[in-house]
Amino acid sequence: MSTIAVYPGTFDPITNGHADLVERAAKLFPKVIVAVAASPKKRPALAHDVRIQLAEEVLGHLDNVEVLGFDNLLTEFTRSVNGQVVVRGLRAVSDFEYEFQLANMNRVIAPDVESLFLTPSEKHSYISSTLVREIASLDGDFGMFVHPKVKHVLTEHYRQVAAAKRS
Amino acid sequence: MSTIAVYPGTFDPITNGHADLVERAAKLFPKVIVAVAASPKKRPALAHDVRIQLAEEVLGHLDNVEVLGFDNLLTEFTRSVNGQVVVRGLRAVSDFEYEFQLANMNRVIAPDVESLFLTPSEKHSYISSTLVREIASLDGDFGMFVHPKVKHVLTEHYRQVAAAKRS
Amino acid sequence: MSTIAVYPGTFDPITNGHADLVERAAKLFPKVIVAVAASPKKRPALAHDVRIQLAEEVLGHLDNVEVLGFDNLLTEFTRSVNGQVVVRGLRAVSDFEYEFQLANMNRVIAPDVESLFLTPSEKHSYISSTLVREIASLDGDFGMFVHPKVKHVLTEHYRQVAAAKRS
Amino acid sequence: MSTIAVYPGTFDPITNGHADLVERAAKLFPKVIVAVAASPKKRPALAHDVRIQLAEEVLGHLDNVEVLGFDNLLTEFTRSVNGQVVVRGLRAVSDFEYEFQLANMNRVIAPDVESLFLTPSEKHSYISSTLVREIASLDGDFGMFVHPKVKHVLTEHYRQVAAAKRS
Amino acid sequence: MSTIAVYPGTFDPITNGHADLVERAAKLFPKVIVAVAASPKKRPALAHDVRIQLAEEVLGHLDNVEVLGFDNLLTEFTRSVNGQVVVRGLRAVSDFEYEFQLANMNRVIAPDVESLFLTPSEKHSYISSTLVREIASLDGDFGMFVHPKVKHVLTEHYRQVAAAKRS
Amino acid sequence: MSTIAVYPGTFDPITNGHADLVERAAKLFPKVIVAVAASPKKRPALAHDVRIQLAEEVLGHLDNVEVLGFDNLLTEFTRSVNGQVVVRGLRAVSDFEYEFQLANMNRVIAPDVESLFLTPSEKHSYISSTLVREIASLDGDFGMFVHPKVKHVLTEHYRQVAAAKRS
Repeated sequence: MSTIAVYPGTFDPITNGHADLVERAAKLFPKVIVAVAASPKKRPALAHDVRIQLAEEVLGHLDNVEVLGFDNLLTEFTRSVNGQVVVRGLRAVSDFEYEFQLANMNRVIAPDVESLFLTPSEKHSYISSTLVREIASLDGDFGMFVHPKVKHVLTEHYRQVAAAKRS
Repeated sequence: MSTIAVYPGTFDPITNGHADLVERAAKLFPKVIVAVAASPKKRPALAHDVRIQLAEEVLGHLDNVEVLGFDNLLTEFTRSVNGQVVVRGLRAVSDFEYEFQLANMNRVIAPDVESLFLTPSEKHSYISSTLVREIASLDGDFGMFVHPKVKHVLTEHYRQVAAAKRS
Repeated sequence: MSTIAVYPGTFDPITNGHADLVERAAKLFPKVIVAVAASPKKRPALAHDVRIQLAEEVLGHLDNVEVLGFDNLLTEFTRSVNGQVVVRGLRAVSDFEYEFQLANMNRVIAPDVESLFLTPSEKHSYISSTLVREIASLDGDFGMFVHPKVKHVLTEHYRQVAAAKRS
Repeated sequence: MSTIAVYPGTFDPITNGHADLVERAAKLFPKVIVAVAASPKKRPALAHDVRIQLAEEVLGHLDNVEVLGFDNLLTEFTRSVNGQVVVRGLRAVSDFEYEFQLANMNRVIAPDVESLFLTPSEKHSYISSTLVREIASLDGDFGMFVHPKVKHVLTEHYRQVAAAKRS
Repeated sequence: MSTIAVYPGTFDPITNGHADLVERAAKLFPKVIVAVAASPKKRPALAHDVRIQLAEEVLGHLDNVEVLGFDNLLTEFTRSVNGQVVVRGLRAVSDFEYEFQLANMNRVIAPDVESLFLTPSEKHSYISSTLVREIASLDGDFGMFVHPKVKHVLTEHYRQVAAAKRS
Repeated sequence: MSTIAVYPGTFDPITNGHADLVERAAKLFPKVIVAVAASPKKRPALAHDVRIQLAEEVLGHLDNVEVLGFDNLLTEFTRSVNGQVVVRGLRAVSDFEYEFQLANMNRVIAPDVESLFLTPSEKHSYISSTLVREIASLDGDFGMFVHPKVKHVLTEHYRQVAAAKRS
């Protein structure tokens, strides 16, 4: 039994909370694929390839973890990489509800793919990409929530946004 | 990597929802241990050994599943069987909150044991042992929620309870 | 189409919140049956016949409302009175979850009986029989939450409980 | 007593979950009006008249159901059709909260209009228009969640969106 | 000990619920600063200075309350005014979750600033700026939810929006 | 303005989470009264005077904190000590709902007493007296969740319970 687990998300940007979850999943499953969704409808702050690259840099030290981008349906992507299980993080009740609904819909579309949930350790439970972007856009300090590379890239991004606004 | 997963509960009695979850966990992990808690404080309707035996009969067809009873702390039991992960079912938000709190406490007590959640398929999402007992105690039909063996034992149990009351 | 609606509960005791809900249900359905459950497992403070009688006194002014006691399964009781719909009150998220689970289980047991939810007006949303009993048992003022008759009976009940403790 | 019930929504598009709810409401009330909101702020994928037409085709077999569009306040629309009750579907806790808030606000604006909730059968509980649109836009299979007519129209819609993007 | 409390929000527009909360906070703390966020990402209906001015008019009668605008990080603003505590309103579970996450993140960024929650009185619990704007934009009556000045300004705003659409 | 805050609870036993909350409340208000409820209906593991004494030992270093026992209605106790505000901890959604209901009921009984909520720091968010007792009763290690004095007393308590069972 060599279960392949897929951990999908927009990762805009990848946070310490995401990294913590991947590390723990990597202890439970022989292989973990971090799947970075294109998610054009969410109008991500960072480009798809930038988000993929940051995830690779943050997770590069984990041997059984691979980072891949995808822009199709999650169940299709999961099958294309022979994944048997989709791993999701649960931080809060609202997460839970959305995830539960999604898991049930996916079960109808792809009964062979299992959904499975991990909770972040409490010290990461409050970190969300949304709040990180909010702090970054207001020029606040968010270095304790993300990898230094991520901090650098996001800071640069919002510097350019601010510059574009001024001009 | 041969992860051993522990699926704990009071199983008073084991329902089709529990069985569904175990079957799915058994596809993801090399070994699943169904751990039946003594739970004296919950004053279970069925005796500990009856609950263990029913779980064994219901799950006997699954090769990589073993049923064991325990009466100590879950984290200690998990370590004693070399389990790396505790699997729990999430049906509803209230489940989630309690489980989340428990997972965080367990993480402090036993950082090496991971907590992981599965959701039942929607057709089992409303089944709970509590509601099954309630229907059984009012002499209602609950055969669609449990294994025939469980139905027989629980019906017999409440027949005796009713007889004891009359006498 | 002359829908009969059943509004079940333990009514230990009936509150202004319950009464408000019944009044509103009575405007929507030709007949509303208020079904007072025996609920021996909940060890109610007031006897079954007292709870029935209080509900009758509080709701006596509503022509299309009838109060009945029951001690069997709700779905069976509902069928025995030709009810097509069970009306429940939703005050809070935790109510919702339990009710949702119950509604789904009942749908499997009795697919012909519909579950339907009303929310109390905001000025009643915080009233619960549990909190009323708590205040009454501590000799606090709860007259704004219940009918005068209910206040009288509950006050008397806890006076006797206190007297029994002293002796 | 001939209660008229209004079932409002954006229906972008109408799903099997919506249809299931309307069918059940139609058994409880003499007349059910399915009210398709214009909802310009939600920027629906399908045009208002397309959404109305699809609802009519999906619900055409129900004698006491009428489909109407509206672009004013729900309470005003409800009064204009002599509706006494607004029926809403509750799938999840987050639904519940928003609906509860809305019901309370509406009660202040229109005390004569009652809000009432039905829950979908468990096999529909995970279907949402949002998830259907998401699957459709990624060219996934969503035929098990909607009526064939709806599938056809939505598939065509996203084919045109994709074509417009390429050109 | 002369605690300065900050009550932040977008106030688009300030409602009777907000005003009720400020009044109660003003009884507990020597000084309350109502902090109106610029919130450009939320694309508020009313301009920043209009929202500030309306809050001033509505709260002008409270001696120990001051209204200030801000466009930086809340924790930075709070420190700049020597605030020790941030007061937030909790209406519903979804509020709670977001606020909880925010409070935890802020605690890491600014451990010296405490987060503290008040609940609106039940008669205001259903009022939200979002629903007020929705009613106003559909030309409904919302005078019972806001101060007369706010009603005037918001009505005027949507009259202009409607006029702009027609032309 | 010299607000007196009351922090009520059963404290069976007082945990590091409680202590953290009291410390933070003590920075915001001139005086904090920790009110240990008799709570006979909850059948506490520890006697009322033991719980009061442990709270005193744990909180003795805080100058503006006083520990008092009470066995009447919270609102009455609060008035008897001239408290203007009741402080409660919010850990989870289920806490929130119960607290919200309670706060609203109390507001009707005692409109002059305000309810106010603090959230524990994330590292304490999972600690509950219930879980601490559960671990202690199963002879697990709970020293990281409570003060050494509390650990000693609770360990001794469950040793005696176990001894009583054996004999």
